[in-house]
Amino acid sequence: MTNLRETSNLIAGDKVSGTTVYNMAGETIGEIEDVMIDKPTGKVAYAVMSFGGFLGMGERHHPLPWSLLKYDTGKGGYVVNLSKTQLEGGPSYEEETEPRWGDRAYESKLHSYYGSDPYWVGPLL
Amino acid sequence: MTNLRETSNLIAGDKVSGTTVYNMAGETIGEIEDVMIDKPTGKVAYAVMSFGGFLGMGERHHPLPWSLLKYDTGKGGYVVNLSKTQLEGGPSYEEETEPRWGDRAYESKLHSYYGSDPYWVGPLL
Repeated sequence: MTNLRETSNLIAGDKVSGTTVYNMAGETIGEIEDVMIDKPTGKVAYAVMSFGGFLGMGERHHPLPWSLLKYDTGKGGYVVNLSKTQLEGGPSYEEETEPRWGDRAYESKLHSYYGSDPYWVGPLL
Repeated sequence: MTNLRETSNLIAGDKVSGTTVYNMAGETIGEIEDVMIDKPTGKVAYAVMSFGGFLGMGERHHPLPWSLLKYDTGKGGYVVNLSKTQLEGGPSYEEETEPRWGDRAYESKLHSYYGSDPYWVGPLL
């Protein structure tokens, strides 16, 4: 009963995948492919967002710090306060590849690009 | 490239699903169906484990506080320090139903049954 899979606070991991991501203007900018979970703390570190090719190139996967995503119950999707330019310039990778997950240098660059605190320091709020 | 989907710390949400769960004796006791994520904090609150029917009844889903699961890289699965009796007596539900996610009374009972701190108080460590 999928309608029960999500409450005010809890959402099933497989329901996060496929969720639409909107910008502040309410335009669809992509969808969540998956989440990356930090096992020691059980925190979601990243949501991996894919672009539907509106960038005029093949679909690419963009890892976004989870703290950037705000869930909009009305839209039934996540809203991120990022411009198309910010997203285009952000770290991304092709579908058949993977970034260096766990590489603190890579992940630090990712967090600093989006101006968010790394998930491994302090709480994700 | 699935072999890259998991690092020392990070694991993809869709890789958690289907992961085998072992008891302390190294016996397979079930597998992870999905995780329940607390949206405000981005913390994994529960891993939903299904039993392969070894209880002599239809497969049931058992939500386990994430903090109970320890990942064993050697086994490639999660280890929980729970007896068969504890698991049999624990809160569970049938495949086509869902518990009252977000109901603090239900979730408090769940956490207290397993003797773990609720995910909404303090960090998950």
